[in-house]
This record gives sequence, structure tokens and C-alpha cells, in this order.
Amino acid sequence: MLATIIGSLAAFLTASSQLPQLIKIIKSRHTKDISLPTYLAITIAAFLWVIYGLYLQNLIIISTNVVTFLFVFVIVCFKFKYK
Amino acid sequence: MLATIIGSLAAFLTASSQLPQLIKIIKSRHTKDISLPTYLAITIAAFLWVIYGLYLQNLIIISTNVVTFLFVFVIVCFKFKYK
Repeated sequence: MLATIIGSLAAFLTASSQLPQLIKIIKSRHTKDISLPTYLAITIAAFLWVIYGLYLQNLIIISTNVVTFLFVFVIVCFKFKYK
Repeated sequence: MLATIIGSLAAFLTASSQLPQLIKIIKSRHTKDISLPTYLAITIAAFLWVIYGLYLQNLIIISTNVVTFLFVFVIVCFKFKYK
């Protein structure tokens, strides 16, 4: 029970963590200080975590990484747009 | 077996993903475009994932997030240093 609460909180924080970064990029139109390799790695990793979560049938891992994947994918696109 | 390989690959990518960002910050001494709320959230989330991983006794989740925590914690410190 406590584990599920902690896991859910971790999942919520992870899933929502990229939202402020995305908003910052949209507002400033600057991405110079952001590392492309970092965001490419996070994008691929989120995709792999989803598959791993499906194997484990762990909804916390799956949902977190679906949301993370979407956010970081958009950030990568902006990284190419606002060089 | 395949799940463990995918999980390990996801873990390796996640754990190492913040290294290029850290190197970029050290080289450029600029963090303006990086979102502090994003990195604070990732730091707290990584700590919570470690606890969740300990509950699940899942070494992949634990190891990934210990490394992630260390990297993002240092990035948060640099975010305060190089405003």
C-alpha cells in the first residue's frame, strides 16, 4: 500500500517533470543550453521503459513513461526547431 | 530474459542520459534555458523511485535512480551556481 503511494508519487513527479521545461522552451524559444543527446536518450529510454512495464504488467511504470515519452519527444522537436 | 535485457537497456540509457547535460553545463557554464522546476522534480522523483525499487526489490529500478539522482542533484547545484 505504502509502496504504491510512493511509486505513484514518483510516477506523477516523473511524468509531469518535463512540463515546466516544455513551457519554458515555448515561452523563450531558446534551447541552446539543453543537451540534445540527453533528450534523445530519455526519449529512447522512455519507450523501452514502456515495453519493460508491459512485461512487468506494472501500470505505474507504463503510464509514467508514456507521458514522459510524449513530453520529451516534443522537446526534442523543439530542440531542432529552436537551435 | 528479454524483459531483463530491455529493462537493463532502459536503465542504462536513463542513468547515463544526464551525463551529456552535465558535461554541457560544465563546458558552457550556462544553464539559462534549463528549467529548475523540471530538475527539482526529477531529483525528488529519482529519490522516490529508489524507495519504490527497494520495496519491489528491483535492482534495475534502484540502480538507475541512484545514478540519476546523483547526476540531477549536481545539475540542480549548477543551476543555482550558473544562473
